[in-house]
Amino acid sequence: MTSRVDVQLGTRSYPILIGPGVLEEAGPAIAARLPRARLAIVTDENVAASQWPRLEASLNASGIAHEILVLPAGEATKSFAKLEQVVDFVLAGRFERNDCVLALGGGVIGDLTGFAAGIVRRGMEFVQAPTSLLAQVDSSVGGKTGINTKRGKNLVGVFQQPALVIADTAALDTLSPREFRAGYAEMAKYGLIDQPDFFAWLEQNWREVFAGGQPRVEAIRRSCQSKADVVARDERETGDRALLNLGHTFAHALEGATFYDGARLVHGEAVAIGMVLAHRFSARLGLLDPADADRVERHLGEVGLPTRMADVPGGLPGAEALLTYIAQDKKVSRGALTFILTRGIGRSFIARDVSPADVLAFLTENLPA
Amino acid sequence: MTSRVDVQLGTRSYPILIGPGVLEEAGPAIAARLPRARLAIVTDENVAASQWPRLEASLNASGIAHEILVLPAGEATKSFAKLEQVVDFVLAGRFERNDCVLALGGGVIGDLTGFAAGIVRRGMEFVQAPTSLLAQVDSSVGGKTGINTKRGKNLVGVFQQPALVIADTAALDTLSPREFRAGYAEMAKYGLIDQPDFFAWLEQNWREVFAGGQPRVEAIRRSCQSKADVVARDERETGDRALLNLGHTFAHALEGATFYDGARLVHGEAVAIGMVLAHRFSARLGLLDPADADRVERHLGEVGLPTRMADVPGGLPGAEALLTYIAQDKKVSRGALTFILTRGIGRSFIARDVSPADVLAFLTENLPA
Repeated sequence: MTSRVDVQLGTRSYPILIGPGVLEEAGPAIAARLPRARLAIVTDENVAASQWPRLEASLNASGIAHEILVLPAGEATKSFAKLEQVVDFVLAGRFERNDCVLALGGGVIGDLTGFAAGIVRRGMEFVQAPTSLLAQVDSSVGGKTGINTKRGKNLVGVFQQPALVIADTAALDTLSPREFRAGYAEMAKYGLIDQPDFFAWLEQNWREVFAGGQPRVEAIRRSCQSKADVVARDERETGDRALLNLGHTFAHALEGATFYDGARLVHGEAVAIGMVLAHRFSARLGLLDPADADRVERHLGEVGLPTRMADVPGGLPGAEALLTYIAQDKKVSRGALTFILTRGIGRSFIARDVSPADVLAFLTENLPA
Repeated sequence: MTSRVDVQLGTRSYPILIGPGVLEEAGPAIAARLPRARLAIVTDENVAASQWPRLEASLNASGIAHEILVLPAGEATKSFAKLEQVVDFVLAGRFERNDCVLALGGGVIGDLTGFAAGIVRRGMEFVQAPTSLLAQVDSSVGGKTGINTKRGKNLVGVFQQPALVIADTAALDTLSPREFRAGYAEMAKYGLIDQPDFFAWLEQNWREVFAGGQPRVEAIRRSCQSKADVVARDERETGDRALLNLGHTFAHALEGATFYDGARLVHGEAVAIGMVLAHRFSARLGLLDPADADRVERHLGEVGLPTRMADVPGGLPGAEALLTYIAQDKKVSRGALTFILTRGIGRSFIARDVSPADVLAFLTENLPA
């Protein structure tokens, strides 16, 4: 029942193991990839309670030495202060360059821990054990790591490829429906980027994906394969990889405007709204049949995701303020805005010459009165 | 009179421009490498006063937009807090990925600024304008960046290759003799690693190198070429590059034991003592004729560098404490200590199996009573 996806990066290629219970087989998998490595494990309070016992048992059975650092759960943990704390934890434990830092948790823990692994001793071995759907289908694959600052989200970080990703789909059973939906938005994104058949499959099978079992594993596997293919083509985002940002420029603005308050809006929800906006904006520019934008909004709404700026609780600032967040987004190049636009379901492309005035007009039209 | 050394790293190759006044030609050189880039410049108070006016005039003449951040001079600036400050400076200025971060200063500014350039937006363009001899012949070349923490020196950082290095030898005229000597230790190192003829040349010509003019430029050029050759062979220090650490494991222990107090011991002085210790230790292990160790000590002493642990003002802790610093050094692998040892002048090699007990006994014998 375990699926495997390989991320092809030459000598730095690595496997993603996907399936229920793979965390219980982590010991042998890690020992095979990184013989004799000691593990510096970073997790959060919630995951320490729900998932760590299974991993710990497997490590002990394999005789793998380890230490663990438990951080507060939540987006606020992706900070310079916590980065320094993780770095000090690894150094204090005298982990050497061939030892390994392991992230056990969702995207926050993975991004923060991967960044620390990338800078301690200028780069240590790193293993991702993602426990949220969002992390399994997106953030744990491809090597992007980072933290947030007051200037924006993920503006500081490194590329640090893991040696192994262990995605235990049984861990998802402890997610709230809201968290699961947030990860689902990123799965749907792969269909919208360049796989219309996958989007159509999700439209048909989303209830089974939410319910669990093999359709869920298959959806995760297909998502990881999609991301792995893009990353293999363009590890450093000098080209195609930017397609993975479909919906994300709008999403980051919405997250900034709500101060990364997960009670109001989590990342996947922002991406859902952002993807609908990217389709509506493409339609406004005459690139896309508006019926396709309707179809995207209908499906994401059907699974329970927010799809409009009006859905953001607590309201949003004006269009000019949102544009400021967009201009600070890292996919800006020399004044012209870069957006992922689309000509149809699964027909997205990189537009590097989007006019700020067009974005401002579009936002003004779409903000709730 | 300008010399040029090319660091060969495929598509990331870059030139080092060496000579008196190259800072005054920086504008055209930067514009040629990085068309239209804006510059986020980081320097320290001393260099801002002595060197910045020349660079500023050149940038203005070339119409290159720039902002500058002036930090306190001194090793304490290589900290997490200052890293965060540099990162925020770059983000606040809305520098984009193709803009450039420029380090104008010595090794502290170069290491800190390069680290920031490597993590803002997961990597920005970077230019080094080293103004100390140490930075010109060593730290500005090869892409190692980093900061210090309470656990040790340079244990946190990234590899971030510059796009260009501008080494103005006229800037060295403002150095104190002590600072110049500290850089000279790293120049002598290249001879001791694998170029006995260069070491012999320095023994003959060191007065002219200290006095300035073409012999100084030639010594810097040859040092940069030595380092460039090693880095081209082994960018990430998986092999040969470790030879550049000749003397450095002892040096880092001495620096740690004196709390990085530059009033007592600067890095190049620690390296001078460390290189003599590496030769004495090699002789003690029966690898080296003690006369060669005498020769190294004689030359470094002749130029005015400290050569013995007894030369460290304020005293040192015991041998066991020094060994603790050595064991925390990042060139440790699985318990066995890695040292650069030598079989003669210019005949150094990597020894990965040095016994901690041998080091302890050697330190005990060589510490002042």
